[in-house]
Amino acid sequence: MQSTKLTLDDVANKDRQYLETIFALGDGHFGVRDAVPFTGNQAGTLPVMLVNGLYVTNPIVYGENAYGYAKLHQTIVSLPNPRNFDLISDTADSTVPGDWRVDLKRTALDFSDGSLNERFGLETKAGEKFLLTVNSWVVQDGTHQFTVTYTLKSINYTGTIQFKRSLFVNGGERSALINDDDPRVAARNARLAIHIQNTKDERSFQWTSKTESTSQTLIQEDQVNAGPQNYSLIRNESGFEGAGKIAAGEEVTWQFTRRLSEINGELKPQQKRDDQAVNRQILGDFWNQSRVELSDEQLQKGIQYNLFQLFQSAGRDGRSNIAAKGITGPGYEGHYFWDTEMYILPFFIYTNPEIAKRLLSYRYSILQQARNRARDLGVDSGALFAWRTINGEEASAYFPAGTAQYHINADIAHAIKLYYEVTDDGDFLRQKGAEIVLETARFWLAYGSWRERKGQQEFCLYKVTGPDEYTALIDNNYYTNRMAKENLAFAVWLIKHGYMVADPGEQEQFSAASERMYLPYDEEQRVTKQDDESPEMPVWPFAKTPKTNYPLLLHYHPLMIYRHRVNKQADTLLAEMIFPEDQSNQQLRRDYDYYEPITTHDSSLSRSIFSILASRLRRPQKAFKYYMDTSLMDLVDLQGNASDGLHEANLGGSWLGLTYGFAGMYVKHGRLHITNYLPDELDHLAFRIRFRGSTLEIKLQRTQTNVLRVAGPTLEVVVDGKARKIK
Amino acid sequence: MQSTKLTLDDVANKDRQYLETIFALGDGHFGVRDAVPFTGNQAGTLPVMLVNGLYVTNPIVYGENAYGYAKLHQTIVSLPNPRNFDLISDTADSTVPGDWRVDLKRTALDFSDGSLNERFGLETKAGEKFLLTVNSWVVQDGTHQFTVTYTLKSINYTGTIQFKRSLFVNGGERSALINDDDPRVAARNARLAIHIQNTKDERSFQWTSKTESTSQTLIQEDQVNAGPQNYSLIRNESGFEGAGKIAAGEEVTWQFTRRLSEINGELKPQQKRDDQAVNRQILGDFWNQSRVELSDEQLQKGIQYNLFQLFQSAGRDGRSNIAAKGITGPGYEGHYFWDTEMYILPFFIYTNPEIAKRLLSYRYSILQQARNRARDLGVDSGALFAWRTINGEEASAYFPAGTAQYHINADIAHAIKLYYEVTDDGDFLRQKGAEIVLETARFWLAYGSWRERKGQQEFCLYKVTGPDEYTALIDNNYYTNRMAKENLAFAVWLIKHGYMVADPGEQEQFSAASERMYLPYDEEQRVTKQDDESPEMPVWPFAKTPKTNYPLLLHYHPLMIYRHRVNKQADTLLAEMIFPEDQSNQQLRRDYDYYEPITTHDSSLSRSIFSILASRLRRPQKAFKYYMDTSLMDLVDLQGNASDGLHEANLGGSWLGLTYGFAGMYVKHGRLHITNYLPDELDHLAFRIRFRGSTLEIKLQRTQTNVLRVAGPTLEVVVDGKARKIK
Repeated sequence: MQSTKLTLDDVANKDRQYLETIFALGDGHFGVRDAVPFTGNQAGTLPVMLVNGLYVTNPIVYGENAYGYAKLHQTIVSLPNPRNFDLISDTADSTVPGDWRVDLKRTALDFSDGSLNERFGLETKAGEKFLLTVNSWVVQDGTHQFTVTYTLKSINYTGTIQFKRSLFVNGGERSALINDDDPRVAARNARLAIHIQNTKDERSFQWTSKTESTSQTLIQEDQVNAGPQNYSLIRNESGFEGAGKIAAGEEVTWQFTRRLSEINGELKPQQKRDDQAVNRQILGDFWNQSRVELSDEQLQKGIQYNLFQLFQSAGRDGRSNIAAKGITGPGYEGHYFWDTEMYILPFFIYTNPEIAKRLLSYRYSILQQARNRARDLGVDSGALFAWRTINGEEASAYFPAGTAQYHINADIAHAIKLYYEVTDDGDFLRQKGAEIVLETARFWLAYGSWRERKGQQEFCLYKVTGPDEYTALIDNNYYTNRMAKENLAFAVWLIKHGYMVADPGEQEQFSAASERMYLPYDEEQRVTKQDDESPEMPVWPFAKTPKTNYPLLLHYHPLMIYRHRVNKQADTLLAEMIFPEDQSNQQLRRDYDYYEPITTHDSSLSRSIFSILASRLRRPQKAFKYYMDTSLMDLVDLQGNASDGLHEANLGGSWLGLTYGFAGMYVKHGRLHITNYLPDELDHLAFRIRFRGSTLEIKLQRTQTNVLRVAGPTLEVVVDGKARKIK
Repeated sequence: MQSTKLTLDDVANKDRQYLETIFALGDGHFGVRDAVPFTGNQAGTLPVMLVNGLYVTNPIVYGENAYGYAKLHQTIVSLPNPRNFDLISDTADSTVPGDWRVDLKRTALDFSDGSLNERFGLETKAGEKFLLTVNSWVVQDGTHQFTVTYTLKSINYTGTIQFKRSLFVNGGERSALINDDDPRVAARNARLAIHIQNTKDERSFQWTSKTESTSQTLIQEDQVNAGPQNYSLIRNESGFEGAGKIAAGEEVTWQFTRRLSEINGELKPQQKRDDQAVNRQILGDFWNQSRVELSDEQLQKGIQYNLFQLFQSAGRDGRSNIAAKGITGPGYEGHYFWDTEMYILPFFIYTNPEIAKRLLSYRYSILQQARNRARDLGVDSGALFAWRTINGEEASAYFPAGTAQYHINADIAHAIKLYYEVTDDGDFLRQKGAEIVLETARFWLAYGSWRERKGQQEFCLYKVTGPDEYTALIDNNYYTNRMAKENLAFAVWLIKHGYMVADPGEQEQFSAASERMYLPYDEEQRVTKQDDESPEMPVWPFAKTPKTNYPLLLHYHPLMIYRHRVNKQADTLLAEMIFPEDQSNQQLRRDYDYYEPITTHDSSLSRSIFSILASRLRRPQKAFKYYMDTSLMDLVDLQGNASDGLHEANLGGSWLGLTYGFAGMYVKHGRLHITNYLPDELDHLAFRIRFRGSTLEIKLQRTQTNVLRVAGPTLEVVVDGKARKIK
């Protein structure tokens, strides 16, 4: 049964910054955190509104600089808060901290129309009581509008109510508008210059924000849609204000709409229409395509919440992507990582390929920066994508766990391959995808080197860092080598199939490097090695490590971490998850049992992979436990830092846990495979995907596996090991 | 034949900043660079006077911070220039750049009395011509005095000469004294606050400098010793000034003495005596003890220059050491490294053991900081000395080539062992040395770990960086393991011989770890491996690397360097140099031939070692060539950066090249060994050392090796493989 709402009963706690993240709204372009609207009741200094890809740069200062280091920080900027609405009664002013007691009574996020409904009990020191209902939504049609309705009901107060809609709180160059001596605020706000346009209409306010150092512009308009008839309305220099009378028991309502342009774009013309009907239509389609149904009510809510938030976070303009925290918080400075390709894109590829294509197009848009970066690294050909970036340039200030994670190159190529396998979209390959795959393959060829061992030529990749950041600058990371092997092989396939042209010598070299890519294996322990060295190091002293010392990276010097066998996250196992046919189940079991005890899951990218592999190993209890932690990670605040923003990769991972995990879904030689690994805790699981033009519904029950065709042509699917025609 | 002077004919060029370094004076406590004395003729912004160990701290800013990183920069501060002396004629003022044309005619540094004699031709735009002679010296008796005599002769000018001795140029908080809007100057000078004492005597000026953030105090006094009788003398707020008449052909003389206290100390009472006689006595003793005689005149001058500068650079107070650039320049911020123990201390141990003891006492003075640092690194017992430091705390802001160079621990223990072997000074062991060795051995035991391979238990050290900084964070660096092995074994010896107490279990563990320390060896290539991984990596593309791209670290990203087989300096070979009995000559030859072609010598610590090993391998031409480069490194400005300060480690290395190299000197089981490896280019080499109470003179000729006893008891020396009683 579909879940429709997330409420306060479903979340870990009522810490305001946590709630701000959890109940954030967005449309892929901009996000609005769920801040209490009153100036005097801001929980902290976190931004309220962010725009995906709107950023400033600052020089990175190093303790000791060196050649080729990343030069500039890229930091997503805080934009003026569109939720702000201050109230002044006869005795109290909500801009003053402590004048009003605010009691949160209800918060409900509706997945079917994207609306957020909140109710606050308000009380002044003089005992004046009110009930405030705040209803808000972002229209999902790409017009970038946020509408908020404030309904104030007086419980026992009769008198004047003044209201203020201050438009330059929490972002923008307030100093130009409001005198503010707090140096922290000044530093933050100096990043946006705001130029206010003359707006003829007294009920609207328009301004252009221009980012410092990057000169991106954004136009915004704030407009009064409705207000109580007996209340005045004045446009002042920084917003709207007014006043009127209210009597005990009486209710008054204001509604405002904030509209945003795209970056460097114009405001779209405003249309008359019913926003919520538009949202119900768009989200109805989304849920139709992405439908997931589970027998467990909590997990049902969890997965729907996760998918809803992914939908809200994905950039759709081909020039932005999905930040590590989406647009739900400033964590990781709004940067894009490999998280998108390896954890999130599968969901979009299988359910919303159009969005997937836009996200991959972003990578194409930064291909030239990636070529330049390869040169910075002394690699003569090909392209190296930045480990963390907004504008395509490397922004990682710690190369051993940044730039050295070369695997991002192969991760992007892998996502392109998966996109093509699932969608059959050859045009995308021809226009963009093939060039990325070619350039990344060229990087591997120029970066790697040959060695001879036991009479065998082996292609090796030295001094790399794999996904596991607790092991850095090692040789022949299994994950990296395996992914690079696929990248090179896919380049050969694309050349052979006419998607691109390369000289025969290059094609041959790609082939050789791919075929003879060295994959480390420990013959003695019969375990797939994470890299050449790690298996020899001593195991981390887990028994001596107090629980409060996790995550380790916050409590131990990197040198202490690097010299021990301890994993932040799935690394070798991630490669084994991606390539099921690489190893027997016995091998996978040995590897799982080897790596699981040394993995801390200090990264949010870990548990979903362990869940999937536990499913595959038919360890349903483990699979279910890891899945619970994945699906509910932010709703139970498992990592303890959801206040900085959602763990977007894990949101994607929760979909993988269901589909790749419980349903054993993967594509092999162009055919879809489904295997029923449903754990005991679940009676059934159903989900929809699109595959090569068909829409399928996969239904798992304890004893049955059904694949139904909802639309599109018939096709063959391998179900529980047997090929079936799906009619 | 002893060389007595270094002049402009002996140096690489006449760039002023280069000359400032080369002709620097000092007494181990303070150093004075040879700056042109006029304010208007400062070549740049480098400090002129530095005090060994006088520093400020500033927070280290990291692009990305992490647990346990070094927190504070430590930076040696610039002190007011004691050479400054401005002249004003009727038409020109030497504080104004360009008013005077200054023509350097002569510079001569006298090794026998430590005096520096300079002659400048001066000419104003109006054609007024003068000859200025500047004679200066630092008294070497530990009273910390710098005396400078200016003799001005008019060639064709008759008129007034004004002079100014401005005491607060190039250091100190000038802004308090002189208005200065240059932000760079302000930033630099804000580090010292200067408080001027009331000095009753009109001919002297006393002040206390206090460093910011570290609150070290230094008292200085500047005094007029002499001036021309017909010239006025006024003490103004920042120095002295005056004026008088000069006629063409006439000569006038001023003399000033700058006295300094020790750090946080008082000025010593002034004594009447003949400075230069004192210096001739002290330096006579020094040259007597450190006597080196070579048949090559250039090399004779080179080695004497090098030893003279070492003598000037060594801290003698037990709380300071020898900075990487001595006190001849601000390079490396005045930090102490392993350079002292591995490259410089042998010279002092063998010739001036009292200075060697003081330098080792410095390490004892920072032992508590080293214990704390081990804890920061997650190592539960023992001590880890900072890779670079003044105050004992780690100041390296890049841990892969800083803190990870754990070998400094064993380097210090090695120097203590050598000091004891050569001096037989058991008291030092009991008071300080043994505790350092015990604590460093404990570090290795706690840091390292056991592994089993082929049924053998091996003690391993993972994720370390050896001396070669072009290879970082690797496993079982041969040099590190070999040195740690000695450190552990020496701890056992000290326990067994009653120099310290440890429980038997600990002693046994030290023994086991030392005996079973893993030393990597490549059985296939029959080469001693630098570490577990490096030999497999591709060789650096030397053919594609233009000469201008050296040193590599300034032209390539660390990731490019780390993934190639390329050495900055001797690493494995350094261990083989230290432990001659570890390998056969055949093995050494293979290793030398393996490492030499991949070594860039981008570090100044490299060539001396290659020279010594080439001697040992009886490759005299190579030995001589590397020795030339070592001995004359700064005099020919081989590294191109002598302007920042002398390469102190290499100064020591040049003594090693002669003694350890050409004379094959080393100590084995308490006996001195001498082997004649004199290259064809040299007819003879003689040098003096002290060994266990005896003073010896070693004399090598092409066909003869003589060891003579100059003083002390008879002893047995192994000469050219045969034990001889030296009577």
